[in-house]
Amino acid sequence: MAREGTVTAALIIIGNEILSGRTQDVNLAYIAQHLNDVGVKMSEVRVVPDIEDEIVDAVNTLRAKFDYVFTTGGIGPTHDDITSECVAKAFGQELISHPEALAILQEHYQRTGNELNDARLRMANTPAEAELIPNPISKAPGYRVENVFVMAGVPRIMQGMLEGIKPHLKGGVTTLSKAITSSVPEGVMAGGLGVLQDQHPEMDLGSYPFYKPNGVHGTTIIVRHTDSALVDQVAAAVADLMRSHGGEPEYRDTANE
Amino acid sequence: MAREGTVTAALIIIGNEILSGRTQDVNLAYIAQHLNDVGVKMSEVRVVPDIEDEIVDAVNTLRAKFDYVFTTGGIGPTHDDITSECVAKAFGQELISHPEALAILQEHYQRTGNELNDARLRMANTPAEAELIPNPISKAPGYRVENVFVMAGVPRIMQGMLEGIKPHLKGGVTTLSKAITSSVPEGVMAGGLGVLQDQHPEMDLGSYPFYKPNGVHGTTIIVRHTDSALVDQVAAAVADLMRSHGGEPEYRDTANE
Repeated sequence: MAREGTVTAALIIIGNEILSGRTQDVNLAYIAQHLNDVGVKMSEVRVVPDIEDEIVDAVNTLRAKFDYVFTTGGIGPTHDDITSECVAKAFGQELISHPEALAILQEHYQRTGNELNDARLRMANTPAEAELIPNPISKAPGYRVENVFVMAGVPRIMQGMLEGIKPHLKGGVTTLSKAITSSVPEGVMAGGLGVLQDQHPEMDLGSYPFYKPNGVHGTTIIVRHTDSALVDQVAAAVADLMRSHGGEPEYRDTANE
Repeated sequence: MAREGTVTAALIIIGNEILSGRTQDVNLAYIAQHLNDVGVKMSEVRVVPDIEDEIVDAVNTLRAKFDYVFTTGGIGPTHDDITSECVAKAFGQELISHPEALAILQEHYQRTGNELNDARLRMANTPAEAELIPNPISKAPGYRVENVFVMAGVPRIMQGMLEGIKPHLKGGVTTLSKAITSSVPEGVMAGGLGVLQDQHPEMDLGSYPFYKPNGVHGTTIIVRHTDSALVDQVAAAVADLMRSHGGEPEYRDTANE
């Protein structure tokens, strides 16, 4: 069921390893593209450390500001996995051992012959009113509390959880986009682009210069809007602008950019 | 000149193309690692769209909260490059055409024979009290206003600017780290790790499971602190813990993790 207008989301990336530079986040781009598929627009991202006050504050600020909030990271079995405690605190809910989550873990560890020790039992802890999100990869589930979706940080596991979440999101209109690329430097056509933006203030017109190691450079213009006819019309105008500066524009449909 | 204790920084990544998933940010990890080299700890990151209120709000919130703030993106010649207007507004300073920046651009465009048009002249605009940061790659400079450093978004240009900034940062103590990796699952040793963390509450002890496509999995523990003897001692205890669970720990010095 599509909502009217734009449906927005924020992402909270939880973990010292992202902030230290040890781990290169790849979840943001993946989630943003997949949300756009269902008409949800990623509108802000915060990366926060494994510190309770920071996580609670980010959850409460962003769940009030956006339609949906997603979190990645901090739901494993170790002492530095504190996301569930923080989300429970943010909602003022008790942290419980979720009966369904516990059953999933018991079944999984019995089947694999590994010990369901105290540390692993922590992965069944959720805020009292959480609804589980299945984890098709390693079983320990994610969950939803109101408009906040709590997912694992390991990309493959997060991706599995997101597949289960997508059908339940009530998206709005999907943003369509076209990329137009040529060797014209952005500084050369920036004036013309500005005029085009003024003519279409409702349009998201992004200019992205590129400099390849082989010395090739130029600019990609991305035209984004929900109306495909308008995207085509403005993309054609961008191509004309490039041609007027001696460029040979190449088009590309880029549903997710 | 090193300060006492921890010196903190935040990063504001500005740009719709990061939020849409079109562009995979690689600046965060690079900046975080290079800041740690000079004793500055990346403590929060926000990714915000090309919307004035969002950028102004992020700049003002984070410059009050952290010792340094870095921004990437939005200082090019096109209509969607609005970072300088926003930083000026955040500081309540007039946006001026910076005389030194203008001279740099005039020299560069004269030398290369390209036109310094109105759009490119925008790249000389800075808040009134900005001090320039050299751009060894494409000339158009970044700048500093108080504790806020404004850099380009293109990684190679950002990296060039950061080299010029680093000597001017007054860092605190540098975090040292050791990584200890084995095939022991984190759930197996999580109890022992928790005990170790309780014994050393001042230590940052991170647990990062990995699952490789070839089926190999295990856990890397990162021990982080400013005291190298303490890092060695706790790393040895982690290795003993892994051995007690049948693991064969491998050490790695990871100054920047």
